[in-house]
Amino acid sequence: MHINPIQLFDADSSTFTYLLVAADGVSAVIIDPVDHHLERDLAHLQRLSLRLCYVLETHAHADHVTSAGRLRERTGAQAGAPSGCGIAPAELQLVDGDVVKFGEGEQIDVLHTPGHTAGSMSYLWRGNLFTGDTLLIDGCGRTDFQSGSAAALFDSVTHKLFTLPPDTRVWPGHDYHGQSVSTIGWERQHNARLARRSRAEFEALMAELHLPRPRLMDVAVPANQNLGLPHGV
Amino acid sequence: MHINPIQLFDADSSTFTYLLVAADGVSAVIIDPVDHHLERDLAHLQRLSLRLCYVLETHAHADHVTSAGRLRERTGAQAGAPSGCGIAPAELQLVDGDVVKFGEGEQIDVLHTPGHTAGSMSYLWRGNLFTGDTLLIDGCGRTDFQSGSAAALFDSVTHKLFTLPPDTRVWPGHDYHGQSVSTIGWERQHNARLARRSRAEFEALMAELHLPRPRLMDVAVPANQNLGLPHGV
Repeated sequence: MHINPIQLFDADSSTFTYLLVAADGVSAVIIDPVDHHLERDLAHLQRLSLRLCYVLETHAHADHVTSAGRLRERTGAQAGAPSGCGIAPAELQLVDGDVVKFGEGEQIDVLHTPGHTAGSMSYLWRGNLFTGDTLLIDGCGRTDFQSGSAAALFDSVTHKLFTLPPDTRVWPGHDYHGQSVSTIGWERQHNARLARRSRAEFEALMAELHLPRPRLMDVAVPANQNLGLPHGV
Repeated sequence: MHINPIQLFDADSSTFTYLLVAADGVSAVIIDPVDHHLERDLAHLQRLSLRLCYVLETHAHADHVTSAGRLRERTGAQAGAPSGCGIAPAELQLVDGDVVKFGEGEQIDVLHTPGHTAGSMSYLWRGNLFTGDTLLIDGCGRTDFQSGSAAALFDSVTHKLFTLPPDTRVWPGHDYHGQSVSTIGWERQHNARLARRSRAEFEALMAELHLPRPRLMDVAVPANQNLGLPHGV
C-alpha cells in the first residue's frame, strides 16, 4: 500500500527534505536534510517517537549544506551517499541496484541517475521516487558543473525513470514554483524540458541556459562531501 | 495501515492545506484550501490523476480566504463544513459524530472541537488528526473572537483529542515555527499551553494574550461563510 513520505521544506534554497516512516511506525529514513533545519528535523523524530536508521544524500549539493553528519551524531543513524559523489565519510557508498533495508521489510531501491552530477542517485520506496535534482516537477536540474551532462541526464530520465509505473509519485529535491509532488506518468507526457524531445534537442536546450554559478557552490560542495561536518572531523 | 496526507503550505498566512488520497489511489479529499493556491491545488489533482470527492473546512477562517467554492466548481466535489460556522452553501453541514466516506472504505470521523470558534471541527482519517486551529504543534488557536472560548477549547483538547491513541498524528491548520506534524502523545505531555494545566490556569493564560485583531478578519469571515465565492453567487 502507498505511504507518502513527510515532505519538509527549506525556503532559503527551496530544498525538500523527506522523512520516510516505515509501516512499523517507528523506523525512519531522512533524505537530503539541510544544515540549519537540524533541530526541526530532530524535533519531528522526537515528537513521532521515530528511530532514524539512515540519512541518505541524493548527491553532493551545490546550493545548500547537508546536516547528515550531525544527524548521524545525534541519532546513531548511518549515512548513505552515492559512491560517485566523493562523500567519503558515508558508511554506505551506494551503487546502482543497491537496496537499503529498514524497518520490517521496507526497502529503498538505489537508481544511479547521472546528469545533474555524475554520481547522482534517485531512491525508490513504495512507489515514491525521490529524484534529487535529476527530475524536477516540470523541469530538471542543471547539467553545467560537477561532471554534469545533459546527454546523461536525458538518458537517466527517459530510459530509467520514465520506464517506472506511471502512478509512481515523483518527490523532487527542489521546487521553485510552490508545487510539491508529481507522477512519472504526468512528467513523461508534460515535462517542459524532457517530454517528447530528442536527446539532441534536450542537449541544445540545456546548452543555452547560461545559468549563474551557485552562490554557495565553493563552500557547499566540499562541505557536503564531508556530510556537512567541519573538515578534520 | 498509516497513509500520510500530502501537506501543502501557504507562506502568507502560514496555513496548511491537506490533500488526502485514498488507498484506491484515485479518490481524494482536500481540507482547508487557500484562495490564491487554487491553481496549485488543481495541478496536484491533475498530476496525480485524482478525483476530488470532498473539500472540507475546519471552521470559518479569519486570516485567509478559502478556495472551497471554486474548487467545487472546477472539480465537481461537494463541500463540507461545520454546521455551527454559518457556512451556508456547503452541502454537508457536519455535526459531531458524522462520518464522511470516500474511496473504497475510507472514512473521516467528524469531531466537534469548539473553542477557537464555537463551530470548529477536527477530522480524523487513518490515525491522522486534522485539528484546524484547535490544537497546534506546541500551542493552540486563539479564543478571543467568533464565539471562541478558552474553557471550551480546553475541554475539546483535553477531553476529546488527548484521549485519542498517543501515536495519532496531529496535522495542524497552521504552524508559525517551521514544524509540520506532531502526535497526540507528544502534545499531551509537552504542549506549552495545554499539557499538565488546569482549565482555570489555561483560561487565565489565554485571557492575558491580548493579540491584535486579524488584519483580514472583516473580509475573510464573511467570504469564508460563502466558501470564498463572491456574495450573491
